[in-house]
Amino acid sequence: MRLRLTPQETTFYDLFAKAADNLVVGAGLLTELLGSDKADRTGIAERMRDAEHAGDEVTHAIYRQLNSSFITPFDREDIYQLAGRLDDVMDAMEAAVDLATLYQVEALPPGVTDQVDVLVRAADLTAEAMPRLRSMKNLTEYWIEINRLENQADQVYRKLLAHLFSGEYDAITVMKLREIVENLETAADNFEHVANAIETIIVKES
Amino acid sequence: MRLRLTPQETTFYDLFAKAADNLVVGAGLLTELLGSDKADRTGIAERMRDAEHAGDEVTHAIYRQLNSSFITPFDREDIYQLAGRLDDVMDAMEAAVDLATLYQVEALPPGVTDQVDVLVRAADLTAEAMPRLRSMKNLTEYWIEINRLENQADQVYRKLLAHLFSGEYDAITVMKLREIVENLETAADNFEHVANAIETIIVKES
Amino acid sequence: MRLRLTPQETTFYDLFAKAADNLVVGAGLLTELLGSDKADRTGIAERMRDAEHAGDEVTHAIYRQLNSSFITPFDREDIYQLAGRLDDVMDAMEAAVDLATLYQVEALPPGVTDQVDVLVRAADLTAEAMPRLRSMKNLTEYWIEINRLENQADQVYRKLLAHLFSGEYDAITVMKLREIVENLETAADNFEHVANAIETIIVKES
Repeated sequence: MRLRLTPQETTFYDLFAKAADNLVVGAGLLTELLGSDKADRTGIAERMRDAEHAGDEVTHAIYRQLNSSFITPFDREDIYQLAGRLDDVMDAMEAAVDLATLYQVEALPPGVTDQVDVLVRAADLTAEAMPRLRSMKNLTEYWIEINRLENQADQVYRKLLAHLFSGEYDAITVMKLREIVENLETAADNFEHVANAIETIIVKES
Repeated sequence: MRLRLTPQETTFYDLFAKAADNLVVGAGLLTELLGSDKADRTGIAERMRDAEHAGDEVTHAIYRQLNSSFITPFDREDIYQLAGRLDDVMDAMEAAVDLATLYQVEALPPGVTDQVDVLVRAADLTAEAMPRLRSMKNLTEYWIEINRLENQADQVYRKLLAHLFSGEYDAITVMKLREIVENLETAADNFEHVANAIETIIVKES
Repeated sequence: MRLRLTPQETTFYDLFAKAADNLVVGAGLLTELLGSDKADRTGIAERMRDAEHAGDEVTHAIYRQLNSSFITPFDREDIYQLAGRLDDVMDAMEAAVDLATLYQVEALPPGVTDQVDVLVRAADLTAEAMPRLRSMKNLTEYWIEINRLENQADQVYRKLLAHLFSGEYDAITVMKLREIVENLETAADNFEHVANAIETIIVKES
C-alpha cells in the first residue's frame, strides 16, 4: 500500500500532499483505461478502487488530526473543506472507471483522450502546488492554470456530447457513454473546487 | 398539520429536530411509492408536497429565528447552511415522487427499493442525531454511518443504471426512470451534505 | 466593450453591480435565442461568449481588488464566494446557447420560453438588488422572490421534461434538448445560489 502513513508524515501539509499524489495515481489509471479493452478493465477498476480507498484513508487521517489538534495552520473548517474536495476528485474518477467496466462498453470515443489529458495535467499541477501551501506563496499561477484547464475541459466535454449525439451511436450507447464522460467532466470541475478551496484559504490570510 | 410550531418549540435545536423528523415522513412516502401503481401516485405526490411545504415552514422559522436572535448556539452562517441542506434533502425526495407521477411510468425497477431503503435509514439516523446537536456529543458515529450509507447508495445507483441500460427498456423509458433514480441518488448525497454541515460545526467548536 | 472598468468603478459594490448587469445582458441573449433559427444562432452564441468574457473580466477585477485591499466591506471569503456564484450563472447561460448551436437543433420546445422568462426576471431582480448591498437593507424581498422564481423554474423544468419524454421526439433529440434545458435550469439554481451568498453576508452581519 503506497499511501500508508508514517508518524513523520502526519502533519496537515504532508497529508494534503499525499491526497494530491494519490490523484496523480488515479489520473494515471484513467490513462490506462483509454487504451484498454473490456478484458483489461476489471484489473484497472480494482486498482482504481484501491486508490480510492487509499484516498479515504488520507481523508480520515486529516479528520482525526483535526479533532486532535489544538492549533491548526489555517481555519479548521477550511482544512475540513479542502480534504473533502480532494476526496471528491477521486470519487468522480473512480466512478468513471467503474461505470466503463459495469456497462461493458466497447471502445471509448476518441474525445475521452482529451478529457483524460486535462485531468492528468490538473492532477500534476495540484500535486506540485500542494507543498507550496506551507508558504502560501506562488499559488496564483496554479489557480489560474486550473481554471484555464477547467474551461478547456468544458470545451472538450461539449464537443464530446455533440459527437455522441451525431447519430453514430444508438441511444442506449449514447446514454452509457454520456454517464462516463459526465463523471470525467465532474472530476475536472472538482479539481477547480480544490483550487477554489485553496484560494479561499489564501484570501482569508491575505 | 403535524409540523405546526408552538412557542415552546422555536429554539434552533427544536427546529432542526422538526426538520429532520419531516425527512422521516418524506422517506416513508418514498416507501409507499414503491408498492404503488399509477392510481395511487397522485395521492402520494400530494402528501409529499404537503411534507415539502411543512419543511419550508420550518426552514423559514429557522431563518426568522436567526434574524431575531442576538445570540446563537453556533455560528450564524452554519445555522443558515444546515437549514438549507435539510431543505435540499426534502426537495430531492419530492422531485422523485413528482416525476414518477408526471411521467406516468409503470412499475419502478426493483433496484429502487434498495435506494429507498438507504434513504429511510439515513432519515432515521439524521432524526436520531439531531437532538445530540445540543451536547455536540456522540455525533461521530452518525457521521461515519451516513458516509457509509452514501457509499452504499452510490453502489446501488450504479447497478441500477447498468440495469436500465441492459436493453430491457426502450430509450425514452430509460430516460424517465434515470431522472427519477437520479433524484433519489441526489437525496442520498444531500443527507451526506447535512452530515458534513454538522461536522463543520463540530470541527469549529472542537 | 460595455464592461470595461474605469478607476472610479472599482469598488466591490460597483464590481458586483457590473457583474449583475452583465447577467441581464446574458438573459437578453437567451430571449433572442428563443425566436432564432439555426442561421441566427452563431451570431447569438458569439455575443454570449463576449458577455461571458466580460463577466470573467469583472470576476478577476474583484479577485485582484480582494488581494490588494486591507479592508473589505464584508468577510473576504464571502466576497470571493459571491463573485464566483455570479460567474456560475453566466457560465450556465452561455453553455445553453453554445449547445443549442453545437447540436444544430431545430426549434426549441415551447416550454423553454417559460424557463427564459424566469431567468430574465431573476437577472433583473439581481441587478436591482445589487446596489442595496451597500446599505444591506431591503434585500429580504429580493431573496424571497428569487427563491419563489427558483421554485417556479423547477415546475417549468419538470413539465418540459415530461413534454420531451412524451413521444413527440426521437431519443437522440430528447437528449440534446434535455442538455440545453438542464443548463437553463442550472442557471436558475445558480441565481438562487447568488441570493444565498448574499443572505449569508446579511446573516453574518445581523
